[in-house]
Amino acid sequence: MRDTLEEFKKYREKMNEKILASGNQQIQRFFNLDTRAYEPGALPSKTKELLGLVTSLVLRCDDCVTYHVIRCVEEGVTSSEFYEALNVALVVGGSITIPHIRRAVERLEESVDLRRPS
Amino acid sequence: MRDTLEEFKKYREKMNEKILASGNQQIQRFFNLDTRAYEPGALPSKTKELLGLVTSLVLRCDDCVTYHVIRCVEEGVTSSEFYEALNVALVVGGSITIPHIRRAVERLEESVDLRRPS
Amino acid sequence: MRDTLEEFKKYREKMNEKILASGNQQIQRFFNLDTRAYEPGALPSKTKELLGLVTSLVLRCDDCVTYHVIRCVEEGVTSSEFYEALNVALVVGGSITIPHIRRAVERLEESVDLRRPS
Amino acid sequence: MRDTLEEFKKYREKMNEKILASGNQQIQRFFNLDTRAYEPGALPSKTKELLGLVTSLVLRCDDCVTYHVIRCVEEGVTSSEFYEALNVALVVGGSITIPHIRRAVERLEESVDLRRPS
Amino acid sequence: MRDTLEEFKKYREKMNEKILASGNQQIQRFFNLDTRAYEPGALPSKTKELLGLVTSLVLRCDDCVTYHVIRCVEEGVTSSEFYEALNVALVVGGSITIPHIRRAVERLEESVDLRRPS
Amino acid sequence: MRDTLEEFKKYREKMNEKILASGNQQIQRFFNLDTRAYEPGALPSKTKELLGLVTSLVLRCDDCVTYHVIRCVEEGVTSSEFYEALNVALVVGGSITIPHIRRAVERLEESVDLRRPS
Repeated sequence: MRDTLEEFKKYREKMNEKILASGNQQIQRFFNLDTRAYEPGALPSKTKELLGLVTSLVLRCDDCVTYHVIRCVEEGVTSSEFYEALNVALVVGGSITIPHIRRAVERLEESVDLRRPS
Repeated sequence: MRDTLEEFKKYREKMNEKILASGNQQIQRFFNLDTRAYEPGALPSKTKELLGLVTSLVLRCDDCVTYHVIRCVEEGVTSSEFYEALNVALVVGGSITIPHIRRAVERLEESVDLRRPS
Repeated sequence: MRDTLEEFKKYREKMNEKILASGNQQIQRFFNLDTRAYEPGALPSKTKELLGLVTSLVLRCDDCVTYHVIRCVEEGVTSSEFYEALNVALVVGGSITIPHIRRAVERLEESVDLRRPS
Repeated sequence: MRDTLEEFKKYREKMNEKILASGNQQIQRFFNLDTRAYEPGALPSKTKELLGLVTSLVLRCDDCVTYHVIRCVEEGVTSSEFYEALNVALVVGGSITIPHIRRAVERLEESVDLRRPS
Repeated sequence: MRDTLEEFKKYREKMNEKILASGNQQIQRFFNLDTRAYEPGALPSKTKELLGLVTSLVLRCDDCVTYHVIRCVEEGVTSSEFYEALNVALVVGGSITIPHIRRAVERLEESVDLRRPS
Repeated sequence: MRDTLEEFKKYREKMNEKILASGNQQIQRFFNLDTRAYEPGALPSKTKELLGLVTSLVLRCDDCVTYHVIRCVEEGVTSSEFYEALNVALVVGGSITIPHIRRAVERLEESVDLRRPS
């Protein structure tokens, strides 16, 4: 009953394009800062994506979680690392993060499946 | 996969009626205060609806955003004004508001379409 | 367009099993603490479930609300008691809780229906 | 370095008077609804004050917590009941509630001291 | 026992300088976007400052509220307009905003006093 | 006008002892899980402390931020790494995190000073 990962990506891309086409330059700049925050610097991208994942979890934003789960898988986060990060989010944010953790785990499985050679 | 604007309105109305029929007088009074907060006073309704829109966005309540988008369109908020309000919400509330901004923009398009002569 | 109560329960159970099977012992312990927080002690379970309901409402977690509505019905919370608890959540958390209150009332009806002899 | 309970009460009263004297009738009505939400009804005041306490804790509002701690003591909430309510807030809201729980416990001690015959 | 408006401004300025001197270019750009979000455009600065005020109130950030109260006074927001905006924040965000509304009203008085010819 | 780092630590320790002495076993277990969440595992403590720092920042808990700043310094987080983590929190959580980022930077300076040989 939820969007597949593919539908999520398509909707996200379509709406981002509309927002960026609106002509509001400051929103464009914010989107640019958002992308750049996860680029490698003193901290590697993998660590930054984990920061993105846990902040999204404690703020309970499913779409943000989905995005960072995909990126964590791309950055080679292992299953144990992933669950340890989930545990930090769970302890910090409490049981209200659990429904989001359930969906994060579902998205993790979908993301891993997509990368598996068929 | 989401409710249409029409379905949103129907569900909202049906459930509000049930809640108001429950006999809890204080909830009825709160609903009344909620309606009156956006009536014109020292500030015009248009400004108040923009206040309703940005507070709903930073608190990330999609149904509240949908409601205020509809009302902003009725109050004649222009596209540039709408995006400038979105930008304030984005800067104040950060990237976790982006999924809600995407849905706000989708709702804006639906609301504008509904008011277009066919 | 939303999950039925049955689908909610199945998904919740399936994903909880996956999370608990992950081998992360600390998450298992948190889940255990979560369950035990609502067991009778100095305060009865009914009061604790009401605490769980209102905290879930002001934090606006629909799945958590659904869970505690089911449990409140099992603990014999009456309709008047339920609405008074909703009113506390509404006053404390404001109008942004209203969409969640609408869904809580819908879940209440579903839960009561399930317990009715057919 | 923090306000004493007496200073808290004085500041609260002084500012509430200013707000109510501003002539904004809707704010006056909200304050009235706020008071009435904790009056005995289907649920007793003691339970409602516990609801007020835990919602204030998970939303992390120290002044609201202070107010409900005072009221819980007045309603005869015992130490074990108080800590069980804190535990629900802690599990639901996570470790970020801990600094507020520390201050709640401090306020509890102050409130109990104030009621002790000298 | 709280910082005066003058102390608030000094601390804010001193720390902002340190942050901007850290050499993290993306933080500098964010600060720049933050300033620009309230500049006049399709919406006048007065409206944008009111948007900043109410979003800060519902997110319960006292320092942000203080900043926007100062700016609202500079933009000529009248007392009635100010209280109507507070009322929207109160209804949207609920009673947990009240301690912040108390401090907003105190800051309003301080800001108005500072602008009065002596 | 704020607590020094030394006062913060003393108050934290004193109140934690009171809470743990209350006899509520579940709270004790939660505190234990809280400590263990940052111990080295698949992810090193340094990464976990950074996760603790950014989640505390986006949830805007000054005491939690102070604690994790101290721990990040102990784990050898460099200034550039620290500011990159702040930037992720700023982008994710928006401008309302700025007052907390100011205080985080102040705490960082205090923590570094404490570790400097005199």
